Parts: sequence; structure tokens; C-alpha cells
Amino acid sequence: MAKLTKLLDNEAFQAYATYATIVLLKMMLMSLLTVYFRITRKAFANPEDVATFGRGETAKKYLRTDADVERVRRGHLNDLENIVPFLGIGLLYALSGPELSTALLHFRIFAGARVLHTFAYLIPLPQPSRGLSWAAGYAVTISMAYKVLKTALYL
Amino acid sequence: MAKLTKLLDNEAFQAYATYATIVLLKMMLMSLLTVYFRITRKAFANPEDVATFGRGETAKKYLRTDADVERVRRGHLNDLENIVPFLGIGLLYALSGPELSTALLHFRIFAGARVLHTFAYLIPLPQPSRGLSWAAGYAVTISMAYKVLKTALYL
Amino acid sequence: MAKLTKLLDNEAFQAYATYATIVLLKMMLMSLLTVYFRITRKAFANPEDVATFGRGETAKKYLRTDADVERVRRGHLNDLENIVPFLGIGLLYALSGPELSTALLHFRIFAGARVLHTFAYLIPLPQPSRGLSWAAGYAVTISMAYKVLKTALYL
Repeated sequence: MAKLTKLLDNEAFQAYATYATIVLLKMMLMSLLTVYFRITRKAFANPEDVATFGRGETAKKYLRTDADVERVRRGHLNDLENIVPFLGIGLLYALSGPELSTALLHFRIFAGARVLHTFAYLIPLPQPSRGLSWAAGYAVTISMAYKVLKTALYL
Repeated sequence: MAKLTKLLDNEAFQAYATYATIVLLKMMLMSLLTVYFRITRKAFANPEDVATFGRGETAKKYLRTDADVERVRRGHLNDLENIVPFLGIGLLYALSGPELSTALLHFRIFAGARVLHTFAYLIPLPQPSRGLSWAAGYAVTISMAYKVLKTALYL
Repeated sequence: MAKLTKLLDNEAFQAYATYATIVLLKMMLMSLLTVYFRITRKAFANPEDVATFGRGETAKKYLRTDADVERVRRGHLNDLENIVPFLGIGLLYALSGPELSTALLHFRIFAGARVLHTFAYLIPLPQPSRGLSWAAGYAVTISMAYKVLKTALYL
């Protein structure tokens, strides 16, 4: 077991573990929000989900799209598109021996940017709030990718 | 090489490797199912995919959505939304030195829940089968996230 | 820090780090392409995104789907569906002590196949270009999964 816990003894790796878990939990929250909006807006995607509302036409009218539900789903997909690169590149970055303070700066900006992005998407805030928070997370990921390729390029 | 194989000598990490690979292979199966339903239902998304069916209007009628294809695609997206958090949090959890039996319990419930979820979505089974299998995987991931943050919180 | 940099001293792991970063950067490029097509085609998904085009009906007509935008988005989603398994299974494969040359072969084919897939999707090239490039990446991932399960099966 010693070898394994060694990885999590490293502070930069601990920081990665903390922030990766936080952004993944934030992303998982989007599922609950989707469920919440589907139920309050009565807008479902599957016939079996509306069976309790009655049979035939009564239930069928709830098989529809709703602007709020679609908004949460777009936010969720945007999370996937941006958090997956962070997970992969961030892990390799944490293993590339970065300065702890630099690593923390990267992880904190990314996590903060994604939380802001979610608020900007769901409230919604006027643009360019959502655009800028997306760009901040994007730039941080590129910066980590640069460090990974500088440390470990092997084509 | 020694250092590397050490990671996979750890039984909790081996268990993670096994179940992560299994759920990813299960998720990849959704791509094949999508292809299968697109071909049998003749419902495609791209003009170049229907070019072999003829030219012009003959081919164009196959550029449509189909209920079965959309169902598989929703299942695939739900997999992505839930398996990505499992991959990231599960990896950190496996590195946090969990009891082997506890780790196995988490991984087995997650993998079982996702397989059930797929059957519940594709057959489809009446609700709340799909909802409960989704919730089981979700709860397991939250439980692992709690252990990770307890072991390695570094904000 | 020593333990950490050890991981990235291993050449197969370095190769994984390099190719994982490359395919993730390629996937991130899809976001920029989506933004580019949304702006040039004037096709947006959110009311707040078209607020600068004016008020009311003037702006509303830009809340629409566009064939080019949807094509990039399908390519992006296909990337997610295929690169997520590569990230997870590839990491475990790199840790399973593969021959360096075999590992490089797997990673290079996967990265090449995904780049080809993107060109085939966006130009678009006639089928089966896109189908074959997708299948090549899929087959490589299955091959790595087999090696992982052979090395570390622990059910």
C-alpha cells in the first residue's frame, strides 16, 4: 500500500485530487438540476417517465422539450467538454512536478471559472460572462498541456 | 518499469483497473448499438452516410431522427455524464488507500448499477428501474468522493 | 516529489502523456470551431448570446440550428465518446508495463485515427472514411483494454 499513498502524500497531487473531485461533483450536480427542471417543468424525454401521469394523450403531452431543461443540458454538456480535458491534462500536469503554488493557481482558476460558468449559464448572466468564464478554464488547461508536453514529450 | 508495475500490484488499484475498463467497454458498446439502430431503422444524421442509398430525394428521407436511435444516444450520453466522474473520482479513491473489501463493494455496485441502467433504458423497463439504477451509481460516486476529500483535501 | 517524477520517467507513460494531451487538445479545438461556426453562420442557442444583435424579433431569428454548427457538435460528441475510453483505458494500459514499441503503436494509431476522423467529419469526406477512422480508434482501445484485463483482472 505504501507506494500508493505516496502519490497522495505529494502536495501538488493532493491539490489535483481536491480540485478534480470538486469540479466533478459540480458536474454531477447538473444531473440533479436536470431532474429538478424536468419534474417542475413537466418536460420528459421517455414515455416510461410519464407513465404515472396517466395513459395515452394525457401523458404524451409531457414528452416535450423545455427551454430551462435544455439550458441545463447544454451547461452539462459544456462541463463534459471542458472537465474531461482538465481531468486528463491536469493529472499529467500534477505528475510533471510543477511548483505547488503554480499548480494551485491553475487548479483554483479552473474550478472558479467552471463554477462561474455554471452560474452565468443558469441565471443567465448577460454575455460575455459565460464566454469569459469558459475562456479562463480553457486557457488554464492549455497552459497545463504546455507544461506536460515540455516535461514529457515522447512522440 | 518497476515503479509502474508497483501501482498495478496493489489489489485495490487492480480492482479499479478492472471495473473502470469494464464500464468503459460497456459504454463503448453504446456506439455499436447506435450504428446498429441507425442501419436497421435507416435513420442517419449526415448526408454522406446516406449517399449509397441513391441521390437526391431518395437518400434525403433517411436523414431523420428515430425514437430507438435517440434512446440509445440518450443512454450513451447518460453513461458519459456518470462514468466520467467515476473514472476520475474512482482513480483518486483507489489511490487514497481504501480497504480492499470496501473498494470492491463500491466498484461492483457502480458497474452493476450502470449495466442495469443500460438494460432499463434500452428494453425499456418501467420506472423507477432506470431512476434507481442511476441513483445507485451516483451515490457510490459521492461516497468515493467523500473518502478522497477526507484523505487528501488541499485547497 | 521524487516518486511522482518517477512515473513520468517511464517512457511508455511519457508516450501516453504525450498522445493523451494531443488528442485532448484536438478535442478542445472543436469548441473553438463551434464558436467560429456559430458566429459566421449566425446560429446561436441562447437568447443572451444574440442580445448584441438587437432586441426582440431581430435577435430571435439567430436562435436557430445550422447544419455546419450541428456537424461540428456531432464531431465533438463523437470525440468525447471515444477519447474518454482512450484516456481511462490508455492510462491503465500504460501502467500495465507494455512494450514501449507496442504502446507507441497503439497511441499513434489512435491519435492518427482521431485526427483523420475529424477531417473526414468536417470536410466531409465520402464514407467509409469517417467510419473506418472511427473503427481504427475503437479497435486500438479494445486492444489496450484486453492487455489491461489480462494484466490486472481482479473482479
